Amino acid sequence: MQDSLTVTYHIRSTAAEIASRAEGVALEQSVELPRLAVRDPQIVENILGRVASIRPLTAEEGPAQTFEVLIQLARATTGDDPAQWLNMLFGNTSLQSDVLLADVALPEEQLHLFVGPQVGSAGLRALVNGYDRPLTCTALKPQGIPSAQLAELCYTFACAGIDFIKDDHGLANQPFSPFAERVAACQAAVARATAQTGRTSLYVPNLLGGPRTLAEQAHICRDLGVQMVMLEPMLVGLPVMHELVASGLGMAVMAHPAFAGALRIAPDLLFGKIFRLFGADAVIYPNYGGRFTYSPQTCLELAHNLRQPWGPLRTAFPVPAGGMQVDRVGEMVTFYGNETILLIGGSLYMAGDALLERSRTFVDNVRGGTR
Amino acid sequence: MQDSLTVTYHIRSTAAEIASRAEGVALEQSVELPRLAVRDPQIVENILGRVASIRPLTAEEGPAQTFEVLIQLARATTGDDPAQWLNMLFGNTSLQSDVLLADVALPEEQLHLFVGPQVGSAGLRALVNGYDRPLTCTALKPQGIPSAQLAELCYTFACAGIDFIKDDHGLANQPFSPFAERVAACQAAVARATAQTGRTSLYVPNLLGGPRTLAEQAHICRDLGVQMVMLEPMLVGLPVMHELVASGLGMAVMAHPAFAGALRIAPDLLFGKIFRLFGADAVIYPNYGGRFTYSPQTCLELAHNLRQPWGPLRTAFPVPAGGMQVDRVGEMVTFYGNETILLIGGSLYMAGDALLERSRTFVDNVRGGTR
Repeated sequence: MQDSLTVTYHIRSTAAEIASRAEGVALEQSVELPRLAVRDPQIVENILGRVASIRPLTAEEGPAQTFEVLIQLARATTGDDPAQWLNMLFGNTSLQSDVLLADVALPEEQLHLFVGPQVGSAGLRALVNGYDRPLTCTALKPQGIPSAQLAELCYTFACAGIDFIKDDHGLANQPFSPFAERVAACQAAVARATAQTGRTSLYVPNLLGGPRTLAEQAHICRDLGVQMVMLEPMLVGLPVMHELVASGLGMAVMAHPAFAGALRIAPDLLFGKIFRLFGADAVIYPNYGGRFTYSPQTCLELAHNLRQPWGPLRTAFPVPAGGMQVDRVGEMVTFYGNETILLIGGSLYMAGDALLERSRTFVDNVRGGTR
Repeated sequence: MQDSLTVTYHIRSTAAEIASRAEGVALEQSVELPRLAVRDPQIVENILGRVASIRPLTAEEGPAQTFEVLIQLARATTGDDPAQWLNMLFGNTSLQSDVLLADVALPEEQLHLFVGPQVGSAGLRALVNGYDRPLTCTALKPQGIPSAQLAELCYTFACAGIDFIKDDHGLANQPFSPFAERVAACQAAVARATAQTGRTSLYVPNLLGGPRTLAEQAHICRDLGVQMVMLEPMLVGLPVMHELVASGLGMAVMAHPAFAGALRIAPDLLFGKIFRLFGADAVIYPNYGGRFTYSPQTCLELAHNLRQPWGPLRTAFPVPAGGMQVDRVGEMVTFYGNETILLIGGSLYMAGDALLERSRTFVDNVRGGTR
C-alpha cells in the first residue's frame, strides 16, 4: 500500500482465532464486506485494510488474551477529511466490544491535513506571561448563580494570580447566567483584577451548542477580547472543533472531556430515544446475531423506543443491520414486525454476478414474510 | 424541584456505599462541587441534582452489585439547548466506569424542545410507496470503486425493488468517488430504474464532514432531488444533526451508529493525540487519584503525547483535573513537570470565605513547586 496510515488496535481473542479476527477488523474498517465479496484486484491492492502485525500483549488468561494488531489503511479512504479520518479509525469497530482503538501512526505529510493547536503551549505561556513553572487554572461554579456572582468569583481568582479561570463545563446559555451577559461580566472582572495587580489572568468561557450557536458565541467572545475558549469536542463533535479552529477562531482552545465515555449509554436510550429526539427518521443499529454484540432484548427495546408514541414526536424506523443474511429475513420480519427497515449489505454482494437475483430474493422474502 | 427531568443511571457499587455514590453522581451532573461547598439555599433547592430513588437491579455478586438510581435534574440547567441537555445527562459521569446512562424521562412540554423526526416512519412509507410490510435497504460498497460503478450497483438494487439504497458509511468525499459526482450518478440511476419499473427506490447519500461541508453536501443533495440522507451523529456531533434538521434540512435522515463506541479509544490517543490534531491548545482530562479512574501511567502518556514534537503541530498543554487538591500540587508538579496547566476547582470552593487565601496558596504552591 503506497500511501497509508497505521492503526493499532488491542483485540481480545484466543490465539487460535486472532488471525481471522484481525482480518475481520481490517475488512470492517475498509471495505465493510466479506473478503470473498471483494473481487476487484485494484480494491484488494489499494483499498483493503491490511494486517501488518499481530503480537500478544498479555499472557493467556482463561480462554482469551489481548493482542496488539497493527492495520494499514489507505490514505485515499480518508479523503483527507478529519471526520472521515475518524470514521476510518474507529467507525464500526467502535461497536465491537472486543476491540480497543489504541494508537495511530501518520506519516508527517498527513499531519499537515490537521489544523492542530493554533496558539500552542508556548503561545499560552506568552498570553499569561508565565514561564518556567506550571500554569494554574480553576473553574467558575456552580451553575445556577447569577452572572454577577460568577464575575465576583472570577475577580477573586484573578486577584489570587490564577492563570486561567474557565467556566465550569456545565455553564452554557442558561437563564440564570446567559452567555453574553456572563462572558461580558467575567471578562470585565479579569480586566479589573489585572488593572490592580499588573498580572494577567485569562477568563475562558465555555462554548456549547450546535454549529450556529458556537459561531455566535465565538463572535461574542472575540468582540469582548476573550483570548481562549473551552469546547467539549465529544459533545459538539470533533469535526466541529476542527472546523472552528481551521476557519480562524482566533482564540486558543481548551478542550474538555465531557461525554467522551459515551459508549456507556444504553443502546435503547442512545439509538432508540436520543437519536429520535435529535431528528433521525430512521436509525441504523447493530442487529443481534450479526457482527456485533447486542442482545435480542436490547434490539427489541431500541426498536420499541423508536416506534412508540412519544408526545409530539413523529415515529422513526428501526434499521437493524450488520451481518444480516437474506435467509434470515423471515426471522427478522417475525421478530420486528412490519414497522422496520431491513438493511442487508454484504450478504447481497456475496452473490457476485447474481446480485440482481439475490436482491430480488431479499425483496420477495420481505413481501412473503409480511404478517 | 419544580421543572425537572429524571435520569436513570445503573451504578455498580456495594450496598453500603450506593447512597453516597448516587449522591456523588447527582453532584457531578449538576453543581460539580462537593456537597459542603454548596451553601446557597437557592442552589440547593433549584439546581442541585436530587436522588429520587435507589433500588438493586441484581443480587449481590462478590463485592458489588448493580443499582438503578433515578436522579432529578433541574430543567433550567439544560438551558433548553440540545447540546447542554446531553451534557447534563452524561457529561462528566460518562468518564466514570461504574456508571451507565440507562434512560431519561422528559415531561411532554420538554419534548417540544427537540426537533425529532421531520419525515417520520409514515412519511418514509409514503416516499417509497410501501405499506403493510417491512421496508428494505442495502448499501453501496466497497469504497474505492468509481462513481459509475456505484451507480450501476444502485441501478441493479433499484431494479430489484429495494426501497432504500444508501451509501456505505465509509463513502465520504474521496478521490475515487467524489461526493457531487457520486450523488449525481446514483440519483440518476434510481430515476432510470423507476422509469423502467414504475417503482420508487430512494438513493440515500452519506453526508460527512464539519458543519460547512455538511451544509454544502446537503445543498448538492437538495438540488439533485435527493429525499433522504445518512448521517453519523456520534461522529459529526449529535447537536450538528439536530441543528441541520431544525434549520430545515428538507430531507429525511437515516442515522448510522459509527463511532458510537468511542469510549473504547485509549485515553492517551483520544486526548493526547486526536484532540491535539483537531486543534486543542490545552486538553483537560481526568487526573489519576481523583474522581475518575485513569492510572498514573495513562496520564503520563497522555501528557507526553500532547507535549512531544510531532511534525508541524504546535505542542499543547495537558490539564489534569477532577478532584485535585491544593495540597497535592507539589506532587503534581513533581509528576508532570512544568509543561502543565494545573486545574483545581472544588477544592478551592471548599474554603468558603477563605477562597482568595486558598487560591493564593494554590498559586504559591505551584510557584514553590517549580523545578
